[in-house]
Amino acid sequence: MDGTVSLIGSGPGDPELLTVKATRLLEEADVVLHDKLPGPEILERIPAEKREDVGKRAGGERTPQSAINERLVELAREGKRVARLKGGDPFVFGRGGEEAEYLAAHGVPFEVVPAVTSAIAAPAVAGIPVTHRDHASSVSFVTGHEDPTKAESAVDWAALAATGGTIVVLMGVGRLPDYTAALDEAGMDPSTPVALIERGTWADQRVATGTLETIVAVRDETGIEPPAVTVIGEVAATRDTVQELLTNERTEVNGDE
Amino acid sequence: MDGTVSLIGSGPGDPELLTVKATRLLEEADVVLHDKLPGPEILERIPAEKREDVGKRAGGERTPQSAINERLVELAREGKRVARLKGGDPFVFGRGGEEAEYLAAHGVPFEVVPAVTSAIAAPAVAGIPVTHRDHASSVSFVTGHEDPTKAESAVDWAALAATGGTIVVLMGVGRLPDYTAALDEAGMDPSTPVALIERGTWADQRVATGTLETIVAVRDETGIEPPAVTVIGEVAATRDTVQELLTNERTEVNGDE
Repeated sequence: MDGTVSLIGSGPGDPELLTVKATRLLEEADVVLHDKLPGPEILERIPAEKREDVGKRAGGERTPQSAINERLVELAREGKRVARLKGGDPFVFGRGGEEAEYLAAHGVPFEVVPAVTSAIAAPAVAGIPVTHRDHASSVSFVTGHEDPTKAESAVDWAALAATGGTIVVLMGVGRLPDYTAALDEAGMDPSTPVALIERGTWADQRVATGTLETIVAVRDETGIEPPAVTVIGEVAATRDTVQELLTNERTEVNGDE
Repeated sequence: MDGTVSLIGSGPGDPELLTVKATRLLEEADVVLHDKLPGPEILERIPAEKREDVGKRAGGERTPQSAINERLVELAREGKRVARLKGGDPFVFGRGGEEAEYLAAHGVPFEVVPAVTSAIAAPAVAGIPVTHRDHASSVSFVTGHEDPTKAESAVDWAALAATGGTIVVLMGVGRLPDYTAALDEAGMDPSTPVALIERGTWADQRVATGTLETIVAVRDETGIEPPAVTVIGEVAATRDTVQELLTNERTEVNGDE
């Protein structure tokens, strides 16, 4: 078998936040398997004849992971240089681990091309450092969009609150009321700053801020929608301090300007 | 004031893992302030006449953060386009938040250029996804190199263990005995897989693996040294499954090949 697969992260959405390696491999690839998550700005730069959208199938239903796995192996066995382009980083809530395991089990040589994760980049371009020497000795990433086959409690919000560090929730707009309630119940201070960053680093990025107590109302007032990242912790207040001088700011939606 | 500062992350060390934006800004910059953390492969590509090393001062002592902050403002006031190049991501244990606050307080326009963090990339190139649908619903990043002015317990290892997610320790070789003991005491299974990745993504990367119980002995036998990342959790075992087919593997040092 001469084919290979590169599991490539697209980064958070700004095409300039692709790595040099990702850019090169997308150019060299014979075929690029992707869904919509990398975002239009990145996908439009890839020649249409090389692109294969594995996000949705005819009829609008989601392509099962097993079908994507099989397609990767099939293309590699045809001798293709396959780029499997994933939104964000391939190994952060991206099912890249499962694809790696499947490729290895089927004898397909592959490499991983790490990327800028939106869990760090979306807060950053909104002026929020996920760690800070004075406020946060750790940061935890969690998904708000849990595997529905798991027990309700797969994410232990009380333990996350107890770390005292920053919590970043990916894909966490829909279930915001659930986990803010869980954190409140776990004893987190209701005045803890919270920020929502919608489409962080994209051209139409939006940011809204509040507290653990107010953020659900803020979300409803501002209409913040997926894809968005939620940042919970003292660091979220850094935005207020630095925002005026931050030049990679795009737009924002609530009254903190 | 016409000068500006870009807080740029260099990524984990492989020059191809720089972002397109970081590459462009390093070329456009009048001056690049850096320490040794970005690594030789990246630093050597920046023209020597543009580089200003703020890692160590004459005599070998570390440049105080306050001196770096002041120098950034000084150069911006001279009208320079300043690139402040930091190892990894500027906002993950990089004191980038403090630099942003100082620049904002002194009226200096700045932007943040997020990067690939070694907390994700070093495990990834060793075949370890920091999250996995079957094994890890969250991942926490923590530094093993704590601010010595803080209370001993600034990092709550018991709370981190209780999350049930992956724990990634940056700069965590020296204090490995301390925090593995703390995790053991908190009730973490002694057979939990642990991996150490030294200089992840660098040309001379090394990987060693063990368990919570054995990893200190593994470190001592293999001589793993800083800079290195520690990965604690079931995901660390993914390496064994995928390693043989992983083509961005470099070298490794213990008996798991």
